[in-house]
Amino acid sequence: MRKTPSYAGAQEQDLPTPCLLLDLDTLKTNIRTLQAFVAKHGKRLRAHAKTHKCSRLAALQIEEGAMGICAAKVSEAQGLIASGIRDVLLTGPAVTPLAHEGILECARADKGFIATIDNLENATRLSELLVSQGRLLQCLLDLDVGFGRSGVPLENFMSFAAAARRLPGLKILGVQAYAGDVQHIADYEHRREANQKCLDAASSALRILRDSGFPDPILSVGGTGSHVFDCGHSDVTEIQAGSYALMDVQYRSIGSHENAERFDTFAPSLSLLTTVVSTNRKGFVTVDAGLKAVYRDGAIPEVIEPGLHYDWFGDEYGKVSGNLANPPLRLGDKLHLVVSHCDPTVNLFDQFFIMQSKKVVDVWPIDLRGCSW
Amino acid sequence: MRKTPSYAGAQEQDLPTPCLLLDLDTLKTNIRTLQAFVAKHGKRLRAHAKTHKCSRLAALQIEEGAMGICAAKVSEAQGLIASGIRDVLLTGPAVTPLAHEGILECARADKGFIATIDNLENATRLSELLVSQGRLLQCLLDLDVGFGRSGVPLENFMSFAAAARRLPGLKILGVQAYAGDVQHIADYEHRREANQKCLDAASSALRILRDSGFPDPILSVGGTGSHVFDCGHSDVTEIQAGSYALMDVQYRSIGSHENAERFDTFAPSLSLLTTVVSTNRKGFVTVDAGLKAVYRDGAIPEVIEPGLHYDWFGDEYGKVSGNLANPPLRLGDKLHLVVSHCDPTVNLFDQFFIMQSKKVVDVWPIDLRGCSW
Repeated sequence: MRKTPSYAGAQEQDLPTPCLLLDLDTLKTNIRTLQAFVAKHGKRLRAHAKTHKCSRLAALQIEEGAMGICAAKVSEAQGLIASGIRDVLLTGPAVTPLAHEGILECARADKGFIATIDNLENATRLSELLVSQGRLLQCLLDLDVGFGRSGVPLENFMSFAAAARRLPGLKILGVQAYAGDVQHIADYEHRREANQKCLDAASSALRILRDSGFPDPILSVGGTGSHVFDCGHSDVTEIQAGSYALMDVQYRSIGSHENAERFDTFAPSLSLLTTVVSTNRKGFVTVDAGLKAVYRDGAIPEVIEPGLHYDWFGDEYGKVSGNLANPPLRLGDKLHLVVSHCDPTVNLFDQFFIMQSKKVVDVWPIDLRGCSW
Repeated sequence: MRKTPSYAGAQEQDLPTPCLLLDLDTLKTNIRTLQAFVAKHGKRLRAHAKTHKCSRLAALQIEEGAMGICAAKVSEAQGLIASGIRDVLLTGPAVTPLAHEGILECARADKGFIATIDNLENATRLSELLVSQGRLLQCLLDLDVGFGRSGVPLENFMSFAAAARRLPGLKILGVQAYAGDVQHIADYEHRREANQKCLDAASSALRILRDSGFPDPILSVGGTGSHVFDCGHSDVTEIQAGSYALMDVQYRSIGSHENAERFDTFAPSLSLLTTVVSTNRKGFVTVDAGLKAVYRDGAIPEVIEPGLHYDWFGDEYGKVSGNLANPPLRLGDKLHLVVSHCDPTVNLFDQFFIMQSKKVVDVWPIDLRGCSW
């Protein structure tokens, strides 16, 4: 009753709203733009799936040259691998017996699977599990470059690395150094400076590894906001960007180049389609997308139709004001939003409608939606 | 690979986190408390499913005496009816051909189904569809009592009601008057005054209906924040509350009685279970619940364990500070949060773990999650 069988060839007017549209040409341009930039600098791209939660999109990133895919959570990694994706890097910590079992499954199914570790007690338990199963788990040492969310602080890195490298069942491949609090710094130069401090810390960690007889460590870093700086750094081997594929208002609001006020390296391929459902008041209309359709975080969604402004209007609705009269906004009219923050917004939906020339050419399941453990 | 078969008898330590726990005894107490209050005042309860998105929970509300269930969106109504729920009231506007088809399906499957209308052009199209199918649709006239999100303003109500009652295929049963902007006013007395203005407007609308020869109109109003006032009003026939069943910090922060600073009529039956996943920093630990697990809206989540404070720490993580040492918080430890705003948070998950005495006694699918159109 609730699932409609096929939308192939459908037009926007036929779609149930609110829903997510993905412009295929823009998406491919974004993917190819970053891929070419990374390759030009001799780096590799391991695109982050936490943004799009879609195995089909991850497969496209790999088709276009990505060397693997990142997952934030164990269940996300499991979902990617179940769909056939390989060379998955689990970027977040996994500490429970259930999560360790999940990691073991990932390592069994994906020869290129890599986990990250940042705690010796936890790594020891993981090591014991791997040894008991006669398997080897590839790992990056997670370095805290200032954010503090996970990772080993630099001052403890040498002893942690030495101890981790002695654990049987774990094969250390290098370092992860994600500068999570740097990505959205609005000013390009400030962002570059803040990111440089993170890269300096990462270089120090790599030096420790190299000095202890470790020839070619992986250094996996970066996001959409820092990729330009990361690609220019000699120690970096791979980039973890995610939002570049879809884009959102939060990223669009930072400078992509010196003195730039907008981020125009990538264009928004993602938009949210919403319908005008009430026009009884002067000064605004009500649309059918609220908190449950556009996650309230980071910025106000932008209405793509000119002269209009969106604001949330409760869980199920939005308020659109501005130029309502010319052309007149009528009941049933469709509007498009660039969403505030793509990652948590995508996680509210079950599918992307893949659009070319305003028609649905495919529907991609957001199969990793809700994979939050 | 991602779905675990059964959690019956499992303890919290065995659950994948972040996840939603629902304490069955507290839930039933909340449901019975409101049911008894409403019944004592001679009103009926049509509990709102937008909060819990769970047909199984809706069925429990009906078992305990609710006369029906409210749905915010067409797909939510369809999901409820598909699961066997009857006497569903669709509280939100539905204006597209797709939504009209959905309404027709609901009316076919549920003899007690009621839609709401607030626009004559839209109601006319709906009337034409119903007539073409030889069916009758029961409707409430949606009155705008000040929020402006949907509904007909009082000054236009008389002409709208007269025209709507002339439309074939539609059977007008009464009025909906939802005071959406009143529910969370912190001060009890201010909330009572603001709600009284809404009830006065609703009474005026009912008088218009009665004066035109309409004997016993339904008046469907209210939420958790206003139910005490609504139940005391002679014109009100039914209450639409939703959050009372689960509760959240946003509702807990308003006064439930005169001079009260907290809302203690209902207790939080819903909690979010999260795991400590990083302890490398002094002053805080990282837990595995972030924006994608606790919707950032309305309030800061409260940590149920004493002396601890939560804040968001990105899409996947939270930062917990406070009394970390006594007893010491260790990697893998579980914490419980009262969520900020239950409705959009529940909509992030696929299931409730139903708990009694700290053990899982059932798992209820959040089957209406994502039903946002």
